[in-house]
Amino acid sequence: MRESELLRLIRERSADLSGSGPVVVGPGDDCAVVSLRGETLLTVDQLVGGRHYDPRTASIDDIARKAIARSVSDIAAMAGEPSMALATGALPEGFTDGDALFERMAHWARHWGCPLVGGDIAVTDGPMVLTVTVLGQAHAARGPVLRSGARAGDTVFVTDALGGALESGRHLSFEPRVREARWLADALGAELHAMIDLSDGLGRDAGRVAEASGVRIELDASALPLHEGVPGWREALSDGEDYELCFAVPSPTGVPPVCPVSGVALTPVGRVVGGAGCVVRIPNGELIDASDLGWDHGA
Amino acid sequence: MRESELLRLIRERSADLSGSGPVVVGPGDDCAVVSLRGETLLTVDQLVGGRHYDPRTASIDDIARKAIARSVSDIAAMAGEPSMALATGALPEGFTDGDALFERMAHWARHWGCPLVGGDIAVTDGPMVLTVTVLGQAHAARGPVLRSGARAGDTVFVTDALGGALESGRHLSFEPRVREARWLADALGAELHAMIDLSDGLGRDAGRVAEASGVRIELDASALPLHEGVPGWREALSDGEDYELCFAVPSPTGVPPVCPVSGVALTPVGRVVGGAGCVVRIPNGELIDASDLGWDHGA
Repeated sequence: MRESELLRLIRERSADLSGSGPVVVGPGDDCAVVSLRGETLLTVDQLVGGRHYDPRTASIDDIARKAIARSVSDIAAMAGEPSMALATGALPEGFTDGDALFERMAHWARHWGCPLVGGDIAVTDGPMVLTVTVLGQAHAARGPVLRSGARAGDTVFVTDALGGALESGRHLSFEPRVREARWLADALGAELHAMIDLSDGLGRDAGRVAEASGVRIELDASALPLHEGVPGWREALSDGEDYELCFAVPSPTGVPPVCPVSGVALTPVGRVVGGAGCVVRIPNGELIDASDLGWDHGA
Repeated sequence: MRESELLRLIRERSADLSGSGPVVVGPGDDCAVVSLRGETLLTVDQLVGGRHYDPRTASIDDIARKAIARSVSDIAAMAGEPSMALATGALPEGFTDGDALFERMAHWARHWGCPLVGGDIAVTDGPMVLTVTVLGQAHAARGPVLRSGARAGDTVFVTDALGGALESGRHLSFEPRVREARWLADALGAELHAMIDLSDGLGRDAGRVAEASGVRIELDASALPLHEGVPGWREALSDGEDYELCFAVPSPTGVPPVCPVSGVALTPVGRVVGGAGCVVRIPNGELIDASDLGWDHGA
């Protein structure tokens, strides 16, 4: 299919967007034209064939869903509401499912409240590279929840359970925690001190909160909620792609054991203290560095 | 260089952005936080190694510049002002110039008024794929100039000259026509009926204006301004990557022969009439279809 034909299909699928809500002009012109109020959140993420999914086993729907979900999770990490998105695809030469792929991306983007208002298609001699830019609205009352607000005395929580996302396929099917983040911001307001979504493992990502906040985070290995089949605390700390939320609130917290709007568990896993770094108290009582656990794509 | 290290360098380079102008929180958190007013323009474009540049001959600066310039040109096509950008890089395994590449992207983004407020880095087994999302502000008085406003009786213009962008290297060094577009919107206001930037050749791109506007465009082959070395009208119509502006204004136009703020030529190349399609009157007087000239990346 020629690029122009594919773009026409994408445009037709989004024709109802123009003039609806914040979208003044939808896909099909040089730019989309949108009207935004308040504080706008901006994020972009990539999905690379052979790196973020296995092209031999992932379906078109899996790929499209994950591409959108990764960026939506970044909006959730700020307690924002996704509002619109742009998607690009560098598609392998000879790839014939471009229309289906963009149809599924458009589907998932609408599903999470951020319809595609623009995009681009190109051809590559390498594996597929998708990017999704999502714009969101900050929580009207709380504002954006940054990584930098954790304070000594806070309790650190995670949503649901950790570990094994790659082996289990959860890295393709995870649910971005938009509802949980909204509920937390609604319920806790300014007491929702800091938040991040877990893409590179709790050890590394909690370390980022500690660094941004200028504090030390002490995790408790025995408190970590594990997904079924996850061997232990080490994997829960180091496995990537959980896309759960990690957040800090003052103690005592009043955070219930499950999120009332979704039933997802909210589990205290550690505390914020003065100092620097992120450590974990392992079952023998020893404190070890946790921020070096977790993964990093070597470049 | 590890991804986290590269991201740290990018973040440090943009540290001055937070709290300046529309940027509330710059790179380094899950999202950027920005405050936008009026109508916002959104566009994203890709740059693929081996497709949009030759990795054997293009410099890091060439690649970075073109990646930013392509998206800035889309903002110019709407007569908007670039205000901020997000950039992603899927970098080939073993690529060692990631920091220089992002440094040059940050440079060119600032140069055109749209500093990088976010981005992402990944590794690919294939050629490099860069994407740049640019946000812009619509012209405060004129609003966004769409493709769809051309009317029968309008004269069609192009900026500067056409053809030979690939052979000459201009596809790497072109100047997005932000200033010319701003001047046109300032000077002509609502009479700047329609505009597009020329990425796929005047024939095809003027055809897009005709289609979006529900009119017919008749180009005059003998009027086309050619770059030095371009053989003739056929190349001027069909060569891609000019990134000049094509715009329609009511006749008589009062458009001067050169843009007073930049000295770039503004040349009438045709007219808008009732009907459909885009045709060109060739030197023997015949009218031939022009919208099928031009290039399309087959996918």
